Amino acid sequence: MSQIVSYPQLREFTRAVFIKMGCPPQDAETASEVLLSADLRGIDSHGVARLSGYVRLWEAGRINATPNVRVVYETPSTAVVDGDAGLGLVVAPFAMKVAIEKAAAVGSGWVSVRNSNHFGIAGQHAMMALEKDMIGMAMTNASPLVAPTFATERMLGTNPIAVAIPAKEQPAFVADFATTTAANGKLEILQRKSQEAPTGWIQDKDGHSSTNPHELKSGGALLPLGGDRDHGSHKGYCLGAIVDIFSAVLSGANYGPWAPPFVSFLPLAPDPVGEGLGHFLGAMRVDAFRPADEFKEHMDKWITRFRQATPVAGEQVLIPGDPEREMEKERRVSGIPLLDPVVKDLQEVAGKFKLDF
Amino acid sequence: MSQIVSYPQLREFTRAVFIKMGCPPQDAETASEVLLSADLRGIDSHGVARLSGYVRLWEAGRINATPNVRVVYETPSTAVVDGDAGLGLVVAPFAMKVAIEKAAAVGSGWVSVRNSNHFGIAGQHAMMALEKDMIGMAMTNASPLVAPTFATERMLGTNPIAVAIPAKEQPAFVADFATTTAANGKLEILQRKSQEAPTGWIQDKDGHSSTNPHELKSGGALLPLGGDRDHGSHKGYCLGAIVDIFSAVLSGANYGPWAPPFVSFLPLAPDPVGEGLGHFLGAMRVDAFRPADEFKEHMDKWITRFRQATPVAGEQVLIPGDPEREMEKERRVSGIPLLDPVVKDLQEVAGKFKLDF
Repeated sequence: MSQIVSYPQLREFTRAVFIKMGCPPQDAETASEVLLSADLRGIDSHGVARLSGYVRLWEAGRINATPNVRVVYETPSTAVVDGDAGLGLVVAPFAMKVAIEKAAAVGSGWVSVRNSNHFGIAGQHAMMALEKDMIGMAMTNASPLVAPTFATERMLGTNPIAVAIPAKEQPAFVADFATTTAANGKLEILQRKSQEAPTGWIQDKDGHSSTNPHELKSGGALLPLGGDRDHGSHKGYCLGAIVDIFSAVLSGANYGPWAPPFVSFLPLAPDPVGEGLGHFLGAMRVDAFRPADEFKEHMDKWITRFRQATPVAGEQVLIPGDPEREMEKERRVSGIPLLDPVVKDLQEVAGKFKLDF
Repeated sequence: MSQIVSYPQLREFTRAVFIKMGCPPQDAETASEVLLSADLRGIDSHGVARLSGYVRLWEAGRINATPNVRVVYETPSTAVVDGDAGLGLVVAPFAMKVAIEKAAAVGSGWVSVRNSNHFGIAGQHAMMALEKDMIGMAMTNASPLVAPTFATERMLGTNPIAVAIPAKEQPAFVADFATTTAANGKLEILQRKSQEAPTGWIQDKDGHSSTNPHELKSGGALLPLGGDRDHGSHKGYCLGAIVDIFSAVLSGANYGPWAPPFVSFLPLAPDPVGEGLGHFLGAMRVDAFRPADEFKEHMDKWITRFRQATPVAGEQVLIPGDPEREMEKERRVSGIPLLDPVVKDLQEVAGKFKLDF
């Protein structure tokens, strides 16, 4: 049901597709690296499985392959970047570089981005800060699939938050999570396997709890982290809302239910409140707070102590980023498994551009 | 079972208690205002009900009534504040002012605080930014009561996050929430009423789901937002961890299981990794991203649109901060209801300091 492709081979193919879309070579390089970081880290829903989606958005004229990505507003520690309808996979790294430069200059840098598109996994952008001894943050709004607490209407995306924090001897702390109980990708896995979802993941069109993974096709919605009011869904709603406002209201992108859909067959809102999707990226130098070595030694201690927390029988306490780092180590060597529908998708993309896959 | 005391009367009493503890008049003023903002906003667990706890910490020599609160490390957009073991109720507003000044100068300001104590409700500090047309953020670590996903050991506090965002005609967006499924205060209410907790709030000492609100007394723990792995508790664990690291590892406070307990009868860790509790406060000028009026008009639109989201039958979609603002409006007029055990507590405090209550 799946075949394995080596990372270099898959990356070369992806790069070639972006080149065929008209991306400049450096952008094609960046975009393929960012997109495939999802596959390497085991977040298969956000990686090469979405390549055909990006191609269709480009065909629909919603992605500009040669954007003039630029800073349009700034202070010493903040900026707004206009992505010129480019690939989020390219726009977000540009914006993160701006955040890192500002952090180098004044301690921290915060960049809100408008007029962008989906940016792959948030964690990859946040992790750009690590090698500079900075804490990195990344978030984005996304297609509206999530109902706020007490709503039946889809108003927010799964709006992920990523925070990457450097350590010394220990691997970095890397949190990267959707602000919903479960990411849409997990639901897609259940759909393929025809399995029921746990309660608290989704609701039906009337707002009743549902375990049918196909519920979104009948007007249902994903639920904010917490699931229902008794279990703190208002907190998940707050988180999703904060991501939406930082990413899109600060920058001038489309927010809430106006956020453009990822799938090209869904129309854009006829009354946009901004331009494209929004992101929010941040960087803080750890030595803007205390000497970097001191900070990183304490992070080692934090990580070591949490890893040693008394576990539930048969389990092990993990540090955010552990599973993804292990997966990356493995897949860089053994390759990336692709499900048959993904292979078929990529073959179609290959056919379209007269490439081999 | 409860009596009602007017806000001015309760505030005057609280101020007098802080004066008796030896706080300078201006600090007593600030501390009483911050503490009682919890009662006004309906978060009764964090308000005057804790006054006797602060007094006991002071009696135990863990609170310094006349601290030398100061900036000990800084860059143009960041700082570390040493609270000198002062009341968090005083230290956090000091640090927030530093964040606001830095934001005024360079667009954003971020302050990590060490050597502090419990700071009341996070929302009150975040809201200080609103009148300057800034987004305010506040978080703090706290006594370890929460088990990370797959752990039986209590490693984190309920570590709240608050974000306050100004609007134009609409009241501000104010999110303020513990990063657990339910705050400890909610558990205390169930304990008093001898009611069971919903599943997903707590676990027993072996890590099994429990509905016994007294479970923490037998080695149980509060659960991160999400409740269990299937429902995203690893995300709540990430959030609590990020708050802990930003508040305490950046500043040099005690983190994780080393965080000092609020109750004075529990001993401090014999091997501290820093000084006191930690907070993290931030401010971003909205006009560091786009003209303030433009931002605030879009926030009005965001708020109005979300308030109009199609509700579940019989419900209404709320904006973060709505219930607390309504409560404050009511209680400023009608007074603050105090449960009998709280009245008794305050009478004891009054007796101790020869004050009337």
